[in-house]
Amino acid sequence: MVIAQSGGPSMVINESLVGAVLEARKSAKIGKILGARHGILGILGNDYVDLRKVSVKKLEAIAETPSSALGSCRRKPDAADCRAIFEEFRRLNVGYFFYIGGNDSADAARIVAEEAEKDGYPLVVYHIPKTIDNDLRSCDHTPGFGSAARFVASAIRGDDLDNRALLGVKIDVIMGRDAGFLTAASALARQRPDDGPHLIYLPEVPFSEAKFIREVKAVMKRLGRCVCAVSEGIRGADGVPIGAKLGSGEKDSHGNVQMSGTGALGDALARILKEKAKVKRVRADTFGYLQRSFPGIASRVDQAEGRAAGAAAVKAALKGALTKGTIAIVRAAGRKYKVAYAPVPVQNAARFTRSVPKEFIAKNGHDVTAKFVEYAKPIVGELPVCEIF
Amino acid sequence: MVIAQSGGPSMVINESLVGAVLEARKSAKIGKILGARHGILGILGNDYVDLRKVSVKKLEAIAETPSSALGSCRRKPDAADCRAIFEEFRRLNVGYFFYIGGNDSADAARIVAEEAEKDGYPLVVYHIPKTIDNDLRSCDHTPGFGSAARFVASAIRGDDLDNRALLGVKIDVIMGRDAGFLTAASALARQRPDDGPHLIYLPEVPFSEAKFIREVKAVMKRLGRCVCAVSEGIRGADGVPIGAKLGSGEKDSHGNVQMSGTGALGDALARILKEKAKVKRVRADTFGYLQRSFPGIASRVDQAEGRAAGAAAVKAALKGALTKGTIAIVRAAGRKYKVAYAPVPVQNAARFTRSVPKEFIAKNGHDVTAKFVEYAKPIVGELPVCEIF
Repeated sequence: MVIAQSGGPSMVINESLVGAVLEARKSAKIGKILGARHGILGILGNDYVDLRKVSVKKLEAIAETPSSALGSCRRKPDAADCRAIFEEFRRLNVGYFFYIGGNDSADAARIVAEEAEKDGYPLVVYHIPKTIDNDLRSCDHTPGFGSAARFVASAIRGDDLDNRALLGVKIDVIMGRDAGFLTAASALARQRPDDGPHLIYLPEVPFSEAKFIREVKAVMKRLGRCVCAVSEGIRGADGVPIGAKLGSGEKDSHGNVQMSGTGALGDALARILKEKAKVKRVRADTFGYLQRSFPGIASRVDQAEGRAAGAAAVKAALKGALTKGTIAIVRAAGRKYKVAYAPVPVQNAARFTRSVPKEFIAKNGHDVTAKFVEYAKPIVGELPVCEIF
Repeated sequence: MVIAQSGGPSMVINESLVGAVLEARKSAKIGKILGARHGILGILGNDYVDLRKVSVKKLEAIAETPSSALGSCRRKPDAADCRAIFEEFRRLNVGYFFYIGGNDSADAARIVAEEAEKDGYPLVVYHIPKTIDNDLRSCDHTPGFGSAARFVASAIRGDDLDNRALLGVKIDVIMGRDAGFLTAASALARQRPDDGPHLIYLPEVPFSEAKFIREVKAVMKRLGRCVCAVSEGIRGADGVPIGAKLGSGEKDSHGNVQMSGTGALGDALARILKEKAKVKRVRADTFGYLQRSFPGIASRVDQAEGRAAGAAAVKAALKGALTKGTIAIVRAAGRKYKVAYAPVPVQNAARFTRSVPKEFIAKNGHDVTAKFVEYAKPIVGELPVCEIF
């Protein structure tokens, strides 16, 4: 088998890798366990880690480590890539291919699987879900989201206290190209009714400058301070992300415009408030890559689910019900939090993403509902308690 | 007694508050223990928390909470402010005033103390050291620095792994208006010789765009990736901070220009690398306010020292050796890490700051020395271990 990681790293993507490897080691059906470095680029470049030889102790340390230990890539395979991959797979006698990533990685897995069918190369392909964006249609929630959400909610909890001390408007820009789940998770920061975030702007709700100014002014009037959690993906009535207009215009091979790794959106919003709303103290932070890579603060539930999703993919592949699958994370109905891992067609996770559903968005358009908090809380876990006078 | 907090919050400034309050509660010399909200503004506006009435349980929870629980301000008191303060102190029969903060807060304490002498108002004033910048001349290191450094080093450790996975140049802008201690602490992120940060730019070393481009190119050639830790205070040969030129120009009453709360410097450096060094993937993050306010990750040593500094100030004030003092944190010579808390004149901490000394800066101008790492490590504590293949 070959396993690889693709797309943006997360705090628990290595849990899925280790879950898959340890499960594969149990099976007599699997010979070599090769980890391709930098996704399919490692297969094309013949660059592997021999994962059968790595000690369990080292694997466990890798599992606790954020980012993609095998390296990642953002490459959409074309037909020529696939020919080269199958040539390599033939040489190595590879029958199972696992690809850990988000919707683009699921699409890459789908392409490889379909091209293998066309080529008559016998291959079982499984996508293993991972994305801090939480936007896979196949999952109640995705491994990686809980830990990133934990970072965001913790950061906002502390930052709101910082803003209580010095008073003003604080804008925090949070990752999530198309889906606002991570920005929505900022709501978990609240312990008291007047705690921030006071305004939450999601990509799912058209952003209006005039409404933004009005809403910030209202919070300032009420509390003398205001923390805004803003998705990097907010878009105006024209549907074009505001951050993309301000950014470099850089695109990856899946067509995604760069949004992270720049403070442009936060700075633009701060300028609006200073110039047009005449707010005196406005600060903007863009949480950036720390949201997905900060060590030592992962959600325990998220880690366990990342591990289980990796193991489930190997189990399902060995069972052979599907030749191109992904693992759906399904939440059981009822009060007690419980999930199941179900093999489903890879198409269910590929390409198209899901947005924050209407039932999670408050009617005022700048908050989330209690239902969202109920949904997210068990995935994120308890946060450090902060006390005030 | 009246106690208050001033300047930028930190993760352990509440430890100092609680340390002082619990110490004061032991003494028969102290009657009321009033916490003024938002520094001297609380005294001027008659806005206090009765700290004798707060339960120990609540105080302990406050101590664990980041940011300034009493609120903060950036107000330099003038003679009229001082008259109003003494009028209020007379009314309340205040004999002791404690002000927790950095060099500007020490200066505010000095002004209040000197004006009290002029006025003939009998007052013992103690400044309690706090600053994530670590730039007080009176201290080996300051409470608040260790925890902020812990955030920075942890963040860079994770971010370097993120950059290992996707390859490119990553610029991380770190707080520190004049002193580069916090940026220097990024070096603690390294576990292996090729770990980032690969380049460290401090305000103490004149920044040259040409040198920056050359150094990044060299690292990219060697490793195919490069993480740069850049102080928000870096300045060119003219001595003017580059970030201040890009920013809003906003100043506080101590004359400090706003640098934090904007991504402008990181974005400008990223543009330079894209346009002039032709690096394909460049990302910039500005760590911003999270460095001083993230809950749950404070350094244990920093917390203990913050607590002890608060208690030491009260002890010294009650002893009455100085009428205007601050607590110097003095490190014992020898291998074993140990500090003492010595009352010294408040002037020692006020106004002027200290820079990263030459012995901590590597000869190449873009790194720190082993001596710095030895200096900082016990203050920051062990970081989460990250493993790679």
